[in-house]
Amino acid sequence: MEKTFIKALSDIVGESYTLTDKESLACYGYDSTPELESKPGVVVLPGNLEEISRIMALAHDAGVRVTPRGSGTNLSGGSISFDAGVILQTSRMNRILEIDEENLTATVETGVVTSALHREVEAKGLFYPPDPGSMNISTMGGNVAENSGGLRGLKYGVTDDYVMGLKTVLANGELLKTGGKVVKDVAGYNLNQLLVSSEGTLGIFGEITVKLIPKPKTKKTMLVHFPQLEMAALTVSHIIAARIIPATLEFLDRVTIKCVEDYAHVGLPLDVDAVLLIEVDGHPAQVEEDAEGIRQICERHNCSFFQTAASADEALKLATARRVALSALARVKPTTILEDATVPRSCIAPMVKLIQETAKKYNLTIGTFGHAGDGNLHPTCLTDERDQDEIKRAHAAFGEIFDATIAMGGTITGEHGVGVAKKKYLPKLVGESGIKVMRGIKGAFDPKGILNPGKIF
Amino acid sequence: MEKTFIKALSDIVGESYTLTDKESLACYGYDSTPELESKPGVVVLPGNLEEISRIMALAHDAGVRVTPRGSGTNLSGGSISFDAGVILQTSRMNRILEIDEENLTATVETGVVTSALHREVEAKGLFYPPDPGSMNISTMGGNVAENSGGLRGLKYGVTDDYVMGLKTVLANGELLKTGGKVVKDVAGYNLNQLLVSSEGTLGIFGEITVKLIPKPKTKKTMLVHFPQLEMAALTVSHIIAARIIPATLEFLDRVTIKCVEDYAHVGLPLDVDAVLLIEVDGHPAQVEEDAEGIRQICERHNCSFFQTAASADEALKLATARRVALSALARVKPTTILEDATVPRSCIAPMVKLIQETAKKYNLTIGTFGHAGDGNLHPTCLTDERDQDEIKRAHAAFGEIFDATIAMGGTITGEHGVGVAKKKYLPKLVGESGIKVMRGIKGAFDPKGILNPGKIF
Repeated sequence: MEKTFIKALSDIVGESYTLTDKESLACYGYDSTPELESKPGVVVLPGNLEEISRIMALAHDAGVRVTPRGSGTNLSGGSISFDAGVILQTSRMNRILEIDEENLTATVETGVVTSALHREVEAKGLFYPPDPGSMNISTMGGNVAENSGGLRGLKYGVTDDYVMGLKTVLANGELLKTGGKVVKDVAGYNLNQLLVSSEGTLGIFGEITVKLIPKPKTKKTMLVHFPQLEMAALTVSHIIAARIIPATLEFLDRVTIKCVEDYAHVGLPLDVDAVLLIEVDGHPAQVEEDAEGIRQICERHNCSFFQTAASADEALKLATARRVALSALARVKPTTILEDATVPRSCIAPMVKLIQETAKKYNLTIGTFGHAGDGNLHPTCLTDERDQDEIKRAHAAFGEIFDATIAMGGTITGEHGVGVAKKKYLPKLVGESGIKVMRGIKGAFDPKGILNPGKIF
Repeated sequence: MEKTFIKALSDIVGESYTLTDKESLACYGYDSTPELESKPGVVVLPGNLEEISRIMALAHDAGVRVTPRGSGTNLSGGSISFDAGVILQTSRMNRILEIDEENLTATVETGVVTSALHREVEAKGLFYPPDPGSMNISTMGGNVAENSGGLRGLKYGVTDDYVMGLKTVLANGELLKTGGKVVKDVAGYNLNQLLVSSEGTLGIFGEITVKLIPKPKTKKTMLVHFPQLEMAALTVSHIIAARIIPATLEFLDRVTIKCVEDYAHVGLPLDVDAVLLIEVDGHPAQVEEDAEGIRQICERHNCSFFQTAASADEALKLATARRVALSALARVKPTTILEDATVPRSCIAPMVKLIQETAKKYNLTIGTFGHAGDGNLHPTCLTDERDQDEIKRAHAAFGEIFDATIAMGGTITGEHGVGVAKKKYLPKLVGESGIKVMRGIKGAFDPKGILNPGKIF
């Protein structure tokens, strides 16, 4: 990277926020995706929207490529610069600018950590539902770029259901303002929703305005064991068929259960096929009825154990099994390939079965957990990237799993993004006309192709 | 229009579905927008997705322009062909293809009337919330193209909150499939949400899959009179501040109240400044508490009358005042200019006041009603297009109203679309970079510019 370019960057943000030392470049050379690594040419940390604009204008003129990055929790290689370009690191922009109680909105800078926003709004009796697994470190800008989901998606939807306004810096440094505090807006194309889940390829978010809702009055947390996988899957279907929409309806399979128990000792049995974690929230009367309805459905489907948390502490303990699932799996082997195949929720049972059979076929350890109510599963392959033969088998297995997902009317990614990791599967899903249209959109926003290059297509 | 082109159209759909007689061209020459009229060259009524594809491929090759049209309830001139092109009329495609109770989705052809879908899903205990004023005639395809709102937007959102999957025919006749029955999908750009509210300029919808939710167990309808406008507006704010989210929170001003009473004789008083129609729904215990909370807030703000419907029939009667507002206003004068300025809900009071002052300043009759809870108002000017001086004043007045809306952080259209009627205001709202990006997107979908030309920009 040219010295004059780096000097110009440091003129914008200051020397201490322009990193070129070997250690920094190494640290910003990977994210949470296994097997991927590539050092950037420089890391720059802007302090405000204006500085992002100036950085982009500079990079645009110079034809230098820029990859925006929040906390690097990306799971598809989306926050790695593969061409020794600029990493634009947003963590300094971490102010919650406003919580507007009258309009039920919050406006934050892009680098605000998701759970920090949760705490602030909940203190005011309000609620920002999206709660990705990474919420204690991931940033709002990253959540918007990836359209992050979480455990409350079934009832409350995901990030794009809450984004109302964005201040986005385009590739050439221009500021694009979309939406705001109006709850209804049909003036021109819906750029807001197009920018959500654009994975940093269309613009860099500076400020984000999200919708808030009243905090649910109460909730009830249940943990249920099922000796048979099919019965757990049927339970999920029948809860929905009974017109009950839990906030959370999560699933762990046998492999995951064993890893969680080895790790966290929460008292999970090792002889069951599946565990469901279920949470209902809302008005106390509604919660009471829903919980009782769910208990009856679970019992009709031969659950071997049904526990309702008696207190908030106990609820937290029950939820631990699900919350630690990824960590528990990740410690078993050096490399964890976490996927997020997503199917219509009616296909949960055949999907879990297919994953287990594919694991057996390729002689792999795959634990599956995830958002059963959303049809969004996380088959997680425990492997070692030094074992190239096993890695090859893992990729072959996931190829088959994605093909099956698409055949069931599902998608290759429910919440982790395409990034570079799933680029090769995208054309299968969206077809040639889909890719062509997406490339055209990319061209409309970023004709020089300098923003997060090489991602998605 | 060339005879060979018309012959080729009729080869696709049959002669009886290719209309060129004078009467038909006149009938399809206008929609629900005042002051606008323009005869198409031909009207074609495809019977299925395949036929739409073939029509578009033909038009694309010939460079002929095509305007899709549902029931012509468009309020911004969006369904008029201004260049004597093809009107592609979707009303034959009116089958509800599937209601999937396990995945909570409905899949419909584009020409299905919205209220027909309501009836079908409600018979199964399910619920499709969007309920635009035109729901008894408007089509689902039109609702998606315009991102239609309705009276239940405050709690349930609008059309784009429910669209999960689309089969769209692109300008060149290619089929684009986006989304489906998965509730989470981040594979590539969010084309689904970009297509919603694209006003027929990016593609023609053939099939639409929407999300359903369980039907609320019960509801309560309230009608409240306020001698003072400010008190009605404050009531809206304080209901939300009390963390109560009604399904419906609608407003009528003094002009509208008078017209409604003259028309429907529902017993509205003529000496009040404002009427609120409020509906809460959900679990009975929640509904009971919310209604009581609302009653207390209304009384604290000096309402002069508060009625809760004792039965479903009575609820319907109370809602009549709001449901007939547009018809009641429309009968007063030959020309009704219905707008949908939308502001953050905290600005409802200053906005209504500004509309009233502007009406006085320009010596106009403007009645205002609308979705107060959403900040989405319908200032409605009662005029006569033969009185060119008054029409001129009306447009000047709305120009000022839109400027004020934008200054308050609002938008020029909350649910009616830009069409041709609001094209000149769009650049003020979205800025040059917004227009540039939108034009780029249009080019990516429709490089020849044949789809609903002249709309939006």
